[in-house]
Amino acid sequence: MKEQGTYSPGLDGIVAAETKLSFLDTVQSEIVIRGYDLIDLSEKIGYLEIVHLLLHDRLPNAAEKGRLEQALKNEYEIPEAILELLKLLPGKTHPMDALRTGISALAGYDANIDDRSSSVNRERAYKLLGNVPAIVANSYRILNKQEVVLANKDLSYSSNFYYMITGKVPSAMEEKIFDQSLLLYSEHEMPNSTFTARVIASTLSDLYGALTGAVASLKGNLHGGANEAVMYMLLEAGTVAKFERLLDGKLANKEKIMGFGHRVYMKKMDPRALIMKQALKQLCDAKGDDRLYKMCEAGEVIMEREKGLYPNLDYYAAPVYYMLGLPIAIYTPIFFSARTVGLCAHVIEQHANNRLFRPRVSYIGERHNRNVISN
Amino acid sequence: MKEQGTYSPGLDGIVAAETKLSFLDTVQSEIVIRGYDLIDLSEKIGYLEIVHLLLHDRLPNAAEKGRLEQALKNEYEIPEAILELLKLLPGKTHPMDALRTGISALAGYDANIDDRSSSVNRERAYKLLGNVPAIVANSYRILNKQEVVLANKDLSYSSNFYYMITGKVPSAMEEKIFDQSLLLYSEHEMPNSTFTARVIASTLSDLYGALTGAVASLKGNLHGGANEAVMYMLLEAGTVAKFERLLDGKLANKEKIMGFGHRVYMKKMDPRALIMKQALKQLCDAKGDDRLYKMCEAGEVIMEREKGLYPNLDYYAAPVYYMLGLPIAIYTPIFFSARTVGLCAHVIEQHANNRLFRPRVSYIGERHNRNVISN
Ligand SMILES: CC(C)(COP(=O)(O)OP(=O)(O)OC[C@H]1O[C@@H](n2cnc3c(N)ncnc32)[C@H](O)[C@@H]1OP(=O)(O)O)[C@@H](O)C(=O)NCCC(=O)NCCS
Ligand SMILES: CC(C)(COP(=O)(O)OP(=O)(O)OC[C@H]1O[C@@H](n2cnc3c(N)ncnc32)[C@H](O)[C@@H]1OP(=O)(O)O)[C@@H](O)C(=O)NCCC(=O)NCCS
Repeated sequence: MKEQGTYSPGLDGIVAAETKLSFLDTVQSEIVIRGYDLIDLSEKIGYLEIVHLLLHDRLPNAAEKGRLEQALKNEYEIPEAILELLKLLPGKTHPMDALRTGISALAGYDANIDDRSSSVNRERAYKLLGNVPAIVANSYRILNKQEVVLANKDLSYSSNFYYMITGKVPSAMEEKIFDQSLLLYSEHEMPNSTFTARVIASTLSDLYGALTGAVASLKGNLHGGANEAVMYMLLEAGTVAKFERLLDGKLANKEKIMGFGHRVYMKKMDPRALIMKQALKQLCDAKGDDRLYKMCEAGEVIMEREKGLYPNLDYYAAPVYYMLGLPIAIYTPIFFSARTVGLCAHVIEQHANNRLFRPRVSYIGERHNRNVISN
Repeated sequence: MKEQGTYSPGLDGIVAAETKLSFLDTVQSEIVIRGYDLIDLSEKIGYLEIVHLLLHDRLPNAAEKGRLEQALKNEYEIPEAILELLKLLPGKTHPMDALRTGISALAGYDANIDDRSSSVNRERAYKLLGNVPAIVANSYRILNKQEVVLANKDLSYSSNFYYMITGKVPSAMEEKIFDQSLLLYSEHEMPNSTFTARVIASTLSDLYGALTGAVASLKGNLHGGANEAVMYMLLEAGTVAKFERLLDGKLANKEKIMGFGHRVYMKKMDPRALIMKQALKQLCDAKGDDRLYKMCEAGEVIMEREKGLYPNLDYYAAPVYYMLGLPIAIYTPIFFSARTVGLCAHVIEQHANNRLFRPRVSYIGERHNRNVISN
């Protein structure tokens, strides 16, 4: 046991792990993913390539990409009982809570649950990458009394995900933008959900448990829940003028504005947000309706002027998903699905070189004398 | 964002929170629970009193204790659909995974899920304290094709928990020892599961999510899973001589011995273990069979001599639960059930004065040049 250090609320600035996976380099303004710049990747490759990069430590060639795609397709099927179980949940269950329950239940189907070797964890990651989109889409469908839509193996990974959610095959542009959003969400150093997964894994608990905890974390409004909150705000306003008034009102009330700020990028725009802003422009142009784009821009101006705060990815991912015709309640589950690969890679890394996370506290409560209690 | 500090694996020595709940005071050798010494409490009060202390910041008088007991009894009923859902899980599901799934599903029954005020979280804690023992007992029963046993409100809280697990009402001695074990497990500063719960809660996610993550954490062998692992080791050996040989063999293989060591009590015996050691003696004397006690003592001697390591609570809780006739697979779920109150108290504290947990990393991977990737 080490001597206690000083207290930094929220572990601000505390190094929690050594990693070869990713790093927010604020000096060189780069989101480093296994050595590559995420923004650069987002313009040149797709989601499956980054899955390969994260799980196999290098970008795939065409044959490797094909094999990966096939491997994930082989894992598309979810146990029938998982669908039955989702049907038992009360209709008002939050989609993230349904997703959490579904992933938790999957553990019982793993015959090797006690094997935490990297190779078995990697196979497990494939299974989860195959299953999670189906659970995301169908838990939403079941809660909303829609019919289950199972995977269509003729579609690409992202296209199939979009199809299971909406029941429609996306256009080429929609597919590309959706895929890009998944890539941008795939991995991002040590946000709360990734940290949660590593903390859990460090007891030598399994990947399902680590991911279950990560869903719980991502649900919160200060984390993944922000994308839905942003969309509800935009819809509540409806016009640029009303959105400006809404933000002014919230700021006057000292409320936090969802979609702005980030522990690490404090005084800059999240570079991922810029890519989604461009995608939003493209979608607005294509649909001949630029209201959301205009509102978002106006919000940016206010937040920079009033608070010196900049948009994070969720701020622009939300209206992009809206323009893609995705139901709002599923934005955070989509974020989780995209992040599944990053979470799996972190758990694999944690298990490969583990030490139990077990911090201390600063006790600020009272002390009583021992003999103050009588029998 | 603060400057990055140095890296301490497992956050050893890092202060993660300010708390008024508990503190392991290694200088004065005291487990401080809201100002009181846990060991002192364990000799003078019972589990319900510590529940009151943790949730209401003071020990109850007789009337308050009565009201608390009634309030928990009012929350004994679990939704029928939760039992149905547990029946859908594959029979080989780990009891901790079943418990995790059950708690996760409970969230859908909470009409106020978005309210994170202390008062609502406290009511939610009552609900969980009422429901979790029933889920623990019956998920085990269902997985083992036994009949569901619902709560019996005529029994005390601990007696009813024992009854739902075993189908039998405990003797006065059994009840007292079981209750004492729950008290000893109730709260213990910032172990991995409590940390997990606070990390999740800090995104403003809800209590169910925080507890779901904590179940996942507690399952691991380096944490709550240790109590089951200890019991399997004792049973595998069966005699003092064989247990000594088994430990020697494991030590020669540089294996970690479950039930020994603790991040904070490095060079001392966990004081809670001593209380359970006395309980084990009492049970062994009463049943006229001191084999487990003798084996445990012999293990202590070897571990002190060979490694300078001492037993933690799990080392003695395991044989105590065995002598109480509890099924081994349920030891870690019982630990979780007892800790529910501590976890709820920590989430209430976290929500009352929150900052998002979001640490950094030390990046030890490669860096590539941006133009290394072509389209
Ligand atoms: C992401 C976030 C949690 C980072 O938090 P953090 O590093 O803990 O920052 P803090 O909450 O300590 O905020 C620092 C200051 O900036 C302010 N601030 C931060 N984000 C803000 C926001 N979105 N709106 C208004 N003010 C904000 C805080 O009120 C605080 O001001 P103060 O010092 O006057 O009290 C925070 O920016 C936030 O809550 N954003 C909104 C939720 C969101 O979009 N989350 C998705 C993140 S990807
Ligand atoms: C509880 C525990 C995780 C604390 O861990 P920690 O502070 O991270 O300690 P470390 O794992 O860094 O161990 C420090 C040293 O003691 C040794 N050690 C610790 N616990 C040991 C054990 N139970 N058996 C054998 N060696 C042990 C380690 O091997 C290490 O030795 P090294 O420096 O030669 O490599 C650890 O003691 C352990 O794994 N115990 C067994 C599991 C258990 O009983 N858990 C329940 C805890 S309530």
